Amino acid sequence: MRNLKLSLFVVLMSSIVFGQEKPVTYVNPFIGTSNYGATNPGAIAPRGMLSVSPFNVAGKIELNPLEKDSQWLSNPYVNENKFLTGFSHVNLSGVGCPDLGVIISMPTTGEFKTNHLDYGTTYSEETAKAGYYSVALDNYKVKAEVTASTRVGVSRYSFPAGKANVLLNLGLGLTNEQGGMLKINSATEVEGFRTVGSFCYNSPEQAYPVYFVARLSKPAENFGVWKTPNKYEGVEAQWMGYNGKTRLKEGFKREVVGDSLGAYFSYDFEKATQVELKIGVSYVSIENARENLDQEAKDKSFDEVYTETRNAWNKKLKQIEVEGGTKDDKTIFYSALYHTQIHPNIFNDVNGEYPEISTGEIGKTDGTRYTVFSLWDTYRNYHQLMTLLYPQEQLEMVHTMLDMYDENGWLPKWELNSTETFTMVGDPASVVLADTYLRGLTDFDVEKAFEAMKKSATQTEGNPLRPGLKEYLDLGYVSVDSKIAGPVSTTLEYNISDYAIAQLAKELGKKKDYKQFSKRALSYKDLYNPKSGFLQPKMSDGKWYEPFDPNAGANFTENVGYIEGNAWQYLFMVPQDIEGLIALMGGESQFENKLDEVFEKDQYDMANEPDIAYPFLYNYIKGSEWKSSKRVSQLIDEYYHNAPNGLPGNDDTGTMSAWLVYAMMGFYPTTPAQPDYAIIEPRFKKITIHLNPEYYKKEKLIINRLDPEEAENVGKKSLYNKDKFFISHDTLMNIGEINIASEKE
Amino acid sequence: MRNLKLSLFVVLMSSIVFGQEKPVTYVNPFIGTSNYGATNPGAIAPRGMLSVSPFNVAGKIELNPLEKDSQWLSNPYVNENKFLTGFSHVNLSGVGCPDLGVIISMPTTGEFKTNHLDYGTTYSEETAKAGYYSVALDNYKVKAEVTASTRVGVSRYSFPAGKANVLLNLGLGLTNEQGGMLKINSATEVEGFRTVGSFCYNSPEQAYPVYFVARLSKPAENFGVWKTPNKYEGVEAQWMGYNGKTRLKEGFKREVVGDSLGAYFSYDFEKATQVELKIGVSYVSIENARENLDQEAKDKSFDEVYTETRNAWNKKLKQIEVEGGTKDDKTIFYSALYHTQIHPNIFNDVNGEYPEISTGEIGKTDGTRYTVFSLWDTYRNYHQLMTLLYPQEQLEMVHTMLDMYDENGWLPKWELNSTETFTMVGDPASVVLADTYLRGLTDFDVEKAFEAMKKSATQTEGNPLRPGLKEYLDLGYVSVDSKIAGPVSTTLEYNISDYAIAQLAKELGKKKDYKQFSKRALSYKDLYNPKSGFLQPKMSDGKWYEPFDPNAGANFTENVGYIEGNAWQYLFMVPQDIEGLIALMGGESQFENKLDEVFEKDQYDMANEPDIAYPFLYNYIKGSEWKSSKRVSQLIDEYYHNAPNGLPGNDDTGTMSAWLVYAMMGFYPTTPAQPDYAIIEPRFKKITIHLNPEYYKKEKLIINRLDPEEAENVGKKSLYNKDKFFISHDTLMNIGEINIASEKE
Repeated sequence: MRNLKLSLFVVLMSSIVFGQEKPVTYVNPFIGTSNYGATNPGAIAPRGMLSVSPFNVAGKIELNPLEKDSQWLSNPYVNENKFLTGFSHVNLSGVGCPDLGVIISMPTTGEFKTNHLDYGTTYSEETAKAGYYSVALDNYKVKAEVTASTRVGVSRYSFPAGKANVLLNLGLGLTNEQGGMLKINSATEVEGFRTVGSFCYNSPEQAYPVYFVARLSKPAENFGVWKTPNKYEGVEAQWMGYNGKTRLKEGFKREVVGDSLGAYFSYDFEKATQVELKIGVSYVSIENARENLDQEAKDKSFDEVYTETRNAWNKKLKQIEVEGGTKDDKTIFYSALYHTQIHPNIFNDVNGEYPEISTGEIGKTDGTRYTVFSLWDTYRNYHQLMTLLYPQEQLEMVHTMLDMYDENGWLPKWELNSTETFTMVGDPASVVLADTYLRGLTDFDVEKAFEAMKKSATQTEGNPLRPGLKEYLDLGYVSVDSKIAGPVSTTLEYNISDYAIAQLAKELGKKKDYKQFSKRALSYKDLYNPKSGFLQPKMSDGKWYEPFDPNAGANFTENVGYIEGNAWQYLFMVPQDIEGLIALMGGESQFENKLDEVFEKDQYDMANEPDIAYPFLYNYIKGSEWKSSKRVSQLIDEYYHNAPNGLPGNDDTGTMSAWLVYAMMGFYPTTPAQPDYAIIEPRFKKITIHLNPEYYKKEKLIINRLDPEEAENVGKKSLYNKDKFFISHDTLMNIGEINIASEKE
Repeated sequence: MRNLKLSLFVVLMSSIVFGQEKPVTYVNPFIGTSNYGATNPGAIAPRGMLSVSPFNVAGKIELNPLEKDSQWLSNPYVNENKFLTGFSHVNLSGVGCPDLGVIISMPTTGEFKTNHLDYGTTYSEETAKAGYYSVALDNYKVKAEVTASTRVGVSRYSFPAGKANVLLNLGLGLTNEQGGMLKINSATEVEGFRTVGSFCYNSPEQAYPVYFVARLSKPAENFGVWKTPNKYEGVEAQWMGYNGKTRLKEGFKREVVGDSLGAYFSYDFEKATQVELKIGVSYVSIENARENLDQEAKDKSFDEVYTETRNAWNKKLKQIEVEGGTKDDKTIFYSALYHTQIHPNIFNDVNGEYPEISTGEIGKTDGTRYTVFSLWDTYRNYHQLMTLLYPQEQLEMVHTMLDMYDENGWLPKWELNSTETFTMVGDPASVVLADTYLRGLTDFDVEKAFEAMKKSATQTEGNPLRPGLKEYLDLGYVSVDSKIAGPVSTTLEYNISDYAIAQLAKELGKKKDYKQFSKRALSYKDLYNPKSGFLQPKMSDGKWYEPFDPNAGANFTENVGYIEGNAWQYLFMVPQDIEGLIALMGGESQFENKLDEVFEKDQYDMANEPDIAYPFLYNYIKGSEWKSSKRVSQLIDEYYHNAPNGLPGNDDTGTMSAWLVYAMMGFYPTTPAQPDYAIIEPRFKKITIHLNPEYYKKEKLIINRLDPEEAENVGKKSLYNKDKFFISHDTLMNIGEINIASEKE
C-alpha cells in the first residue's frame, strides 16, 4: 500500500510539475471581452460558422452599462455587463461594428415570459474554455452550458424540478436588421431564419437571412410562437383590441414572420432534468441547416461534441509549442493564437454550398469557402501568420478570394457572409495575394490573381475598390478636394498595394508591370512636407491643405486626411520603402528621433492598424535595433493581459492577436508582400513551430532565446538580434533552428 | 350574294330574338359592389380558393371615399371608389369584416415605384363577367385583364412600348394582419407567403400564412425586392442613414421578410407587348402553391383558362333555366346564383392537402375540403338551396363540418380557412346537419353528427359554441346579467338549433332526445312579454330588463338583448313554432297585424338575417297568404337591382342571394330543419331545375307560373298558391312539374 501511494504521488506530481499542459488549457476566452476588444467568451469550433455566446448587451442600462442600443457597440457580450438575455448563435468576434448576434436561446423556469427585459437575469459562476462556456442563471437556478461544432451550437440546460422553458427569441439581436421567420415542426424542433446585415451601417439593401434548425433532446409539453406585431395605424385600429400587443400562438405549426417573435418550449419536470438544445445554421437554406445539424451533431451528446471541439482546438494550437514564460505569458499567447482561428470562418455548409457574393446564386465547393475578410486589418500580419502556421487554410482563403473575383468581378475588401461592406480604405486583397505567393504558397491561379489585382489598380471608372484612382494616377495622390475620406490614408494604402503588385509582377517576370507599379508605390513622397516632417493632406492643385495639426484625429475622431488615425500614426506607414522614408526625413537619426517621438508623445496607438509595425522599425536603424525589442516588450506588458481587458482594443478579427503571436515569438513581417521578417527578442525560452510538410521542407522551426552566455557559445554565425536583424521567409522556413540573442544583460 | 346576305340576317336574328342566351351571360359581377354588398367584380372560378379582384380601397381618400383604414370596410373593391392600387389574389365575398385581400399585383409603366400611393391610378373601361374582369389603367395606358381557375389567378397585362413593370406588393392588404415573405427564384418566378387572419378582430393569435408562387410569361430584364423596414429606435439609430427607408434589393434571390415589402419585375419593350402573370396559392405550403399552379395553369394561356372557367360557370348556372322575365330579372337571378357559388370555397390543394382546424396538422382529402362557413347566415336558406341544386357539394360541406369536429372536437360556427372566428351567436351547424339529412341527403355519418350536435347542446363547461348554456338549460333563456351579448338573440338561436336536434332525433328514432329537445326548442316563450307583445330581454331573476325600446338596435347599433337587430326583427324569428307564436300573440289577426306593422313601420331589415323569412310568414295566415307574394315582390323590386347597389346590403356569403333565388323561383324554406317550403308567386313564367339523378328520382323540377285563365284550366288539384301554400321537400322533389297561380288579376 505504501508503495502504491508513493507511486500515485509521483504520478500526480509529474503531471503537475513536469507535465506539459495541453495548449488548449491555456486559452482564456474572456480575454478581449472588455476594453472594446469585441471578442466573446462563447463556445466555437476552430473557424466555426457558428458560435454560442452569452448575450448580455440588451436593455437594463443600470445592469448593462454597455447597452447595444444606447451607443455604438459591436459585440454580443461585454464582461462588465450583468444582465443576460440568452445565447446568440451567430456572432462576429473582434470587429468594430454591430451585426449578427441573433438566434438567441434562453432557458427559464416558471411561467414563461416573452420579453427579454422580463426574462433576462443576472448570473454567476462563469466558466469559459476553448469550445465551452457555462454560467449559472441567478433567477432560475439553471446551469447553462454551451459548446459548438463547426455549424452546430449545442446547449445543455440543467433545470431544477418544476416548470421549465426553452425560449428562442428571433426578435432580439445585435444586428440592426429586423425580421425573421419561425416554423415549429414538432414538440422538439423549430426551423426558421433571421435577417442580418448592414455591417457598419453599409449596404442595408443587401440584408440577408441566416437559416437555422433547432432541436431539443426532450419533447416539450407545450410549445408555440409569440409575436409582437407592429402597431396598426388608422381609424380602423379602434376595433383591434390586440393592436401591437404580444400574441401567443400555442401549438402553431406554420410559418410566422415578424420583427419581434420567438418560439417557446415548456416542460414541467418532476425532478431536476437536463435538456440539450442543438441549433444548426446555414446561410443557404433551412434544408442545409438541417443537414448541417444532422451531419455534425445528430447522434452526439453535449459531451461528445465538446470533446471533439476541444481536441480540434488543441490540434490547432499545438502547432506551436512554447517553453519558458509564465502561465500568463502562455495564456495570452495561446489565447491570441485561439483568436486568430475565429475569422475568417467557414461559410459553406457540409454539402459544400454557400451563397455567392453579389450574384444571388448558390455556389458549391469541394474545399472550404471562407468569409469575414477584414482585409484592411489582416493584410498587415494575419495572413502572413496563417501562411506560416496553416498554409492549407491560407491557400483556401486565397481560393475563396479568387472565387469572389469570379462571382463578383472584384476582389473582396471587407467581405462579410458574401456581402461586400466596403468598410475602410485601400485595396488590401492584392497585398494578401502577392504576399501569399511570394512566401511560397503558389498553388492558386496566380495569373487570374494578377489580372484581378491589376483590374482594381487600373480601372478608373466604376471601380468600387479604389475610389479616386484616376486622380491618384494623375497626381500620385488622392486630394482633399476629391471628397474621398482620408485622402492621405488612401494614397498610402494604394502605394502599399501597388508595391505588392510590383513584387508579384517581378516574380512572374512581368517587367513592365514591375516597373510601373514600383514607381506608383512611391508616390507617397508627394505628400511629405519637409517643413512639418509629416505626410500631409494635399489639395488637387498641389497646395497643402490648411490648417494642419498632426495630433488631430487620434482616438477615432474624424480629421481631414486620415482614416482612424492621425499624421503620427500614418507617417511611418510606408513599409515598402522604409529606406526611402529615412532618406526623405534626412537620415537615420531624424527617422529615429521622430519614431521615438511617436512613443514618447503618446501618439502611438496600439489599438489600431496603421502604426502596428512601428515598434519593429528600429531594426532599420543601425545600432538602435535593440529598441524594437524594448518597445515591443513594453507594449505587450502594457496592453496584453490575462484578463477581460487583455487586448489593446478591438481584436480586428485576429490582427491584434496575430501581432502578439509574432511579437512573443520574436519575429514580425514588417513589410507585406516582402517575404522577410524583423527579428526581436522572443518572449519564450524555446518555441517550436510545427511546419506543414506538404508545404515546407522542414518539419519544425525551433526558436531559441539565448542568454548572453549561451549566445557566446553558439557564435555570431547562427545568432540573430546581434548583427542580423532581418531574416528572409525562405531562410527561416529552412533553417530548422534559429537562435536569437536576448536583449537582457 | 343576295341570298347569302338574307341567310346571314336570319341567322343573326335567330340568335338575338329566338336564341336562349347562356345563363353565364347574365352574370353581372358588379352587383353587390356598392351599398356594402361586399362582393367584388373580380375573376373567380366556381367555389375558387382564389379570386383576382381589383383593389381600390387603399389610400387617397379624395378618390376613395370608402378607404379601408379610415373606417370599417370589409371588401377589396368598392364601386364608387376611383383609385386602384392593384389586384388582390385571395378575397372574401359578401362578408362583414375585413380579411384577406392580399398578394396584390400591379402593372405599371416607366420607372417603377414601390409605394401604392405613388403607383396607384384612376381607371376606366371596367368590364366584369363570370371569371373575367378587365380595366384600363389611366396613368399607364395598360389594359389589365384577369381570370382564374380554382387555385390560380391569371392576369394579362397589355403594355405599350417602353418601360413596363409588374409589381407584387406583399405589404398592402385588406387584412389587418401584417408580415410576409418573398423569395425571387428567377426572372420569371417569385414565391412567398402573406400573413392573414383576425377576421372580425377575433382570434388574432391564429393569424396564418397564405402561400403563393407567381410566374411571369416573359423573363424580366431587372427584378428585385423592395422592403420598407420599421424604424429602428435607440441612440445607435443616428448612424443608420437608411433607418426606416425603403430599400431596393436588386437581383436578390433569398428570403426577405417584413411588414412592407414587394417584388418588382421590369421590362423595356420595343413594341406593345402582353405579359401574363399566373399566381397559384395554397394554405399548406409554397410547394403546394407551385403544384396548384402547375396542375391547373402551367401550360394554359389566359384565354384557355378563361374559357374553362366560363364553361364551368355556365354548367353551374344552367342547373336552373328560366323563361319569361326581363333581362334585368334574369341578370339579378343568375348573378344571385353566381354569388351562392363563391363561398363556402374549396380549401384543399390539388393534392388534397389542407390545414386542419386547430390541430396545426396537415390533413388530406380525396374529396373536397370546404371553408368559409358563415353559418349564422347560411343555415337559414343557403344550405337548403345547395341541397336542392348541388347535393353532392352540400354533402361534401357536411363531410367537411364533421371532419372539423374530428379535428377540433367541435362543429364550426364561423369557420374561415381552418380558423374558428366565433363570429355571431347561436349554434348553427346543428341546423345545417339536421336539415341536410331531413331533406334526404343521408350519405354521411349521422350518428357522429348527432353526437357532435348533442355535445354542443349539452356540455355546460368549456363549450365554445354555446356560451350561457347552463343558464339556458336552467332558466330556458340566457339572461341580461349573464353578460353574454344579445341574450334574446342567443336564446332564440339555441331554440332553433334544439328544434333541429329534435327533428333529427325523431328521424333517428331517438325518442328521449326528441322529447327533450322539442321542449327546449320552445323556451323562447319565457321571453314573450304579453304587455309589450315582444320577445324581451330578461334578468336571471325573472324580471324584465328595463328600459325596453323595441326600436332600439336597428341598423347595427348596439342594444341590450339583440345581436344585429331589434325586438321587431327578432319577434318572428321562431320558425320552428309559428303556430305557437300565433297562439302566444293571441291569434292570427294579432299575428298578422304585428307582421304588417314590421313592414309598415319600416322595422323590416332586408339587409340582415334574423327577419329574412318574415315576408313568407303570411302563408301561415289563412286568407292572407297573398301578402307573402306581395311583400316578396316589393322587396325584390326595392332591394335587388342589376346595378352595383343591387343587393340589400352585405351578401353574407351568398345568403342574401340565396333568398333572391328562392324568392324568384316561388318557394322558400321558412323553417330550417323542417323539410318543406312556403309557396309564393314565381318571378318567371317557367323555371326548370335540373335535379342531380344520383340524389333525386326525377331529372327535373319544372315550375310554371299560371295566369288566372291558365290556372282555371289545370284545376285546383295541381295548383299551388290558391289553397295550398306549403309543399314538402319530398313532394316537390318528386312532383316533376308544379303549377303556381299568379297573384295578378
